Amino acid sequence: MHDPQELNEYRRTFPSTQQVLEETPDPGVRAMLRHFADQGLETTFDRFDAQKPQCTFGLAGTCCRNCNMGPCKITPKSPRGVCGADADLIVARNFLRWVAAGVSAHGARGREVMLALKGAAEGTIPLPIRGPEKVRAVAKALGITADRQNHERQDRQGQHQAGHDQQPRNLQSLTGSDDQEPSTEELQAEIRSLAAQIADVLLEDLSRTVPGEHKTLAAMAPPERIATWRDLDILPIGAYHEVFEALHRTGTGTDGDWENIARQILRCGLAFAWSSVLGSSIAMDSLYGPPQRQRISANFGSLKPEYVNIAIHGHSPVMASAIVQAAESPEAIARARELGAAGIRLYGICCSGLSSLYRYGQVHPLSNAIGAELVMGTGALDLWVADIQDVFPSIMNVAACFHTKVVTTHDAGRLPGAIHIGFDHHHRNLNKVEAMAAQIVGLAIENYPRRKEGNVFIPETSIDAEIGFSVENALPLFGGPQGLWQLIDSGQIRGIVNLVGCNNPKVIYEKTITDVADILLANDILILTNGCASFPLLKLGYCHPDALAQKAGPGLRQALEAHGLPPVWHMGECLDNARASALFRAVADAAGRPLKAMPFAFSSPEWSNEKGAGASLSFRLLGLNSYHCVPAPLFGSPNVRKFFEHDTEALLGSVMVVDPDPRRLGERIVADLEKRRSQK
Amino acid sequence: MHDPQELNEYRRTFPSTQQVLEETPDPGVRAMLRHFADQGLETTFDRFDAQKPQCTFGLAGTCCRNCNMGPCKITPKSPRGVCGADADLIVARNFLRWVAAGVSAHGARGREVMLALKGAAEGTIPLPIRGPEKVRAVAKALGITADRQNHERQDRQGQHQAGHDQQPRNLQSLTGSDDQEPSTEELQAEIRSLAAQIADVLLEDLSRTVPGEHKTLAAMAPPERIATWRDLDILPIGAYHEVFEALHRTGTGTDGDWENIARQILRCGLAFAWSSVLGSSIAMDSLYGPPQRQRISANFGSLKPEYVNIAIHGHSPVMASAIVQAAESPEAIARARELGAAGIRLYGICCSGLSSLYRYGQVHPLSNAIGAELVMGTGALDLWVADIQDVFPSIMNVAACFHTKVVTTHDAGRLPGAIHIGFDHHHRNLNKVEAMAAQIVGLAIENYPRRKEGNVFIPETSIDAEIGFSVENALPLFGGPQGLWQLIDSGQIRGIVNLVGCNNPKVIYEKTITDVADILLANDILILTNGCASFPLLKLGYCHPDALAQKAGPGLRQALEAHGLPPVWHMGECLDNARASALFRAVADAAGRPLKAMPFAFSSPEWSNEKGAGASLSFRLLGLNSYHCVPAPLFGSPNVRKFFEHDTEALLGSVMVVDPDPRRLGERIVADLEKRRSQK
Repeated sequence: MHDPQELNEYRRTFPSTQQVLEETPDPGVRAMLRHFADQGLETTFDRFDAQKPQCTFGLAGTCCRNCNMGPCKITPKSPRGVCGADADLIVARNFLRWVAAGVSAHGARGREVMLALKGAAEGTIPLPIRGPEKVRAVAKALGITADRQNHERQDRQGQHQAGHDQQPRNLQSLTGSDDQEPSTEELQAEIRSLAAQIADVLLEDLSRTVPGEHKTLAAMAPPERIATWRDLDILPIGAYHEVFEALHRTGTGTDGDWENIARQILRCGLAFAWSSVLGSSIAMDSLYGPPQRQRISANFGSLKPEYVNIAIHGHSPVMASAIVQAAESPEAIARARELGAAGIRLYGICCSGLSSLYRYGQVHPLSNAIGAELVMGTGALDLWVADIQDVFPSIMNVAACFHTKVVTTHDAGRLPGAIHIGFDHHHRNLNKVEAMAAQIVGLAIENYPRRKEGNVFIPETSIDAEIGFSVENALPLFGGPQGLWQLIDSGQIRGIVNLVGCNNPKVIYEKTITDVADILLANDILILTNGCASFPLLKLGYCHPDALAQKAGPGLRQALEAHGLPPVWHMGECLDNARASALFRAVADAAGRPLKAMPFAFSSPEWSNEKGAGASLSFRLLGLNSYHCVPAPLFGSPNVRKFFEHDTEALLGSVMVVDPDPRRLGERIVADLEKRRSQK
Repeated sequence: MHDPQELNEYRRTFPSTQQVLEETPDPGVRAMLRHFADQGLETTFDRFDAQKPQCTFGLAGTCCRNCNMGPCKITPKSPRGVCGADADLIVARNFLRWVAAGVSAHGARGREVMLALKGAAEGTIPLPIRGPEKVRAVAKALGITADRQNHERQDRQGQHQAGHDQQPRNLQSLTGSDDQEPSTEELQAEIRSLAAQIADVLLEDLSRTVPGEHKTLAAMAPPERIATWRDLDILPIGAYHEVFEALHRTGTGTDGDWENIARQILRCGLAFAWSSVLGSSIAMDSLYGPPQRQRISANFGSLKPEYVNIAIHGHSPVMASAIVQAAESPEAIARARELGAAGIRLYGICCSGLSSLYRYGQVHPLSNAIGAELVMGTGALDLWVADIQDVFPSIMNVAACFHTKVVTTHDAGRLPGAIHIGFDHHHRNLNKVEAMAAQIVGLAIENYPRRKEGNVFIPETSIDAEIGFSVENALPLFGGPQGLWQLIDSGQIRGIVNLVGCNNPKVIYEKTITDVADILLANDILILTNGCASFPLLKLGYCHPDALAQKAGPGLRQALEAHGLPPVWHMGECLDNARASALFRAVADAAGRPLKAMPFAFSSPEWSNEKGAGASLSFRLLGLNSYHCVPAPLFGSPNVRKFFEHDTEALLGSVMVVDPDPRRLGERIVADLEKRRSQK
């Protein structure tokens, strides 16, 4: 049962719209919030205010709605639900359903790329495979070799059906396994054969139902961790299966033991990490190629009214990539100019924008999900493409006040009032992606003349930022992971924190992230970032080398100055947690220590959506603590809370730490990393 | 937004424990409720009383807890959640999560049997394949032929590994496809080959991720329906996939369109029907054989204190079947007698009891899930085996007052305080099922001497009932489906209703079911039943031929009297909805009409768990109306409610009908079936 006083105190920490307007760190956001207030437009913060006071049972996790005998709630008068479930069980079940939903969210969009990779490799979809190095590296890790008998046939089929002859990047770096130098055609065929097999493994790991080894996990997780997870009996069968099981177990009268539910939470965390995140990341890098480090201008000021402006909002790279290419076509640009525009310009909202940016450049990052309405409210967007996840339905209410056309492109994500041009449920038209993208860009161009200048309001905030960091391009700067480890071991860099997560109106928008970042940097801790949390860091200068002088402690400054690097390494979108964990792993291996003994941590101060529960869990499963300002709805069960905040230390070498005060949270991270250093 | 007055009126219809005690129709239940009150023991009804008043937002479906920005609720002051989701979207999303959880529940337990069938067929699990006719019929429907090259090897492997030489029943009825009469060994090998391939298809349909045809649906659904479902774009990819998608779509900012959510609800309904229910049913009948019609004594009075008494509670037949066999072993019976017992006696709680009963006989049905506590409270059970679903955690509180040992047998269903002897998460020890079952029966026997006579209280209510009806054994009594159709066409039988579903303390326990049954029977409507709702019908004489004279109208009486049949055909456990739909299909085919034009209906008056939402949906997808006394939590969205109560008539030929008054609901079913008759 929850302590009502604790919940009341918690609710009292929630800020008002007015407080957000005054204290959020980005002046561009503040200007837009004032503009919205002037125009009588509603924001996320207004709706959050209207929801107050929020239900304490929901906040505590002690409301059960898993059957039609309820809803039930745990009170002194009713310590058990109708079925007899107590607070521990209800809290654990609710949290498991969250984690399962997170597995499904990242997994569902990853699957789209896995299907696209498979189609591209098998020649049924006209897409080149742009990440041959990734394909080779993953194939090697998975023990996959090219099927010489098949890939020549596939090659012919591929060229015939796809009609593409684009070469994968860096093809010259590939080496054949035959004695004779293989031809370009042979190399392409080999990559396609490997890519098709990789896609099949990823899809199998996603959907396995007959018990068997999770191949990606078995091939790529640290052996020390696999042993730990096996001992805890939390090795997953596959992502689909564990989600199915999670729903099953949390239904009426199935699992009556919160500790067994906790075990399934951990199992789902592993499915999240190794199928939904890593599987998806492998598919994306294989098909679309690795990130490229580059500079970009970010924030509202990079929105140029003289262009045909297209916002890319969501998470799946399949349509987003095609739109970026379609916007580069000479015909499209010519038509835009014909209508008086200077050209076509792309903007990133949330994650698909970020992953397009680090691959193709020139997709200017404007805002995370919560701020999307604010971008829509500039009136300067001619078209807004939305697919899935963190596309708040509220954007349609703002769009209705402007000429902006909204196009949805995914079968799973429709918006009443939007135009739908997208893949069907069975992805039968995945091979039409280029034509659909061209159609969408065409709609944007034709909508440009409808823009009303008087309706446009753009705060003049623009800044340059570096993006596109990865294990592959960052570690070589230090001569490999050993070099970075030496800087950590010597104490110049005191640790590394992956600072990520969504936003949440329960705290001052974007402020917890910058507050935590300030403390970490001042204490010589290197920051990795991605996704929604990366936007304030992008927009406020943290991702620029100048931030070294402004923000970093002397050790960190000295360590990075020579390389001209920023103190915050932007790794992309939320799935790029896979890059952070790969970097952690590489440095730990160089140090010859398990991850749980390294001065590394995960922090998502403002996390809000169900994926966020999985993200922090997946790092804790690796042995890193996770740090948050917003708590999970576990107040109602001291047992479940203790499990995640304490008991997992012995099981996994990590715990969940919550402190609503971001500065205190930052100090705690610093202290905990120092403790890990002293115990090394 | 919901109408507060409507919700208040709805809540006022909820009965109190006292009302249940006075009005529930089974005297055995009334006696036990009084006994519990005397002993100060708590029941489901007490806990329901303690939950009053239930939250109106939960009842209306307008509480959203799908992310950590919430909980949100829809009120006049807050017509949208923090993300902008309105009442329509929130209500539809919540309901989709229920339906998805239902797909996972039936699917997860079906998978266990599919794995057991596969193991038995491939010789890795020592189980005979007891349903060769089912295997042949399903193989034919799926276009599967025996793999002559493999099955001899499998046969040798099977005999070697399993060490079994039991012949499948009715082996003499099998005919080989060769010219030469095949040997018994060859026939067994052929069945194994077919069964292995069937298991693979069922598992593939369950877990498919690369888009493709759902093979079971494509092979077995009525072509008229497949065309309808294709037009609506609701054909499922697979059960795992649609559940995964359901969670994905209902996460923050994915699907913003309630109508698209409704489409996914329908898609999940098809996955429920054709993978979770039919796929599971095929696997069960293939592995364990078809139902056998037989008589059994039911209700508390069949509980004999002189025996070692074991209750089987839950849903999976794998351990339950092994326990029934272990209890028949001469060694076990001898040991029971050595300790002073007359023998070993088995009792069924909920569904695994029912499916064991119709296959093995002598598993006396005592109670559905809600009444399980009452059975535990007799103090006469020496051991209680529980696996998954509808095993309320509250049984442990009652068990603690008695000597009864509770054993959990499924990795997905643990109970604090119970002994766990079961399959591991990866089903690695599925081949140890017989040893585990013997161990469990042994625990029961050794616990018998600990029973305290003074603690035993058994109401003297016992009745005989006929059970085990199926398409295969019922239709031949009428010379095939044509014969039953003629009785319907002539008007002697006015229609057929599948009267099923769980129980719900929101109405008087078991009374809505008997009230609806009384009206249907008096109006010459034949009733099929299964699962929790079948218990009052079993216990109160409806499943005995004598009920014809007591309950049935003259037409129904005349039609069934000649065959000595009861007016309610008991088809088994909740998965046996598959038998009801098969019977409906066979008669519709005989009539040459689509199901939506037949005088058939589905009713689950008291439904409560998430599977129940899927069950009624799956019959509506076939074109049959569903009838309920307990509404789904759709009050908050007139649009979503109208979709299911009205709009699906045009789309599917069926609607959901809700009336809290069971007699009025019964009259409505009669009137609607008459309407269907008049429109034929």
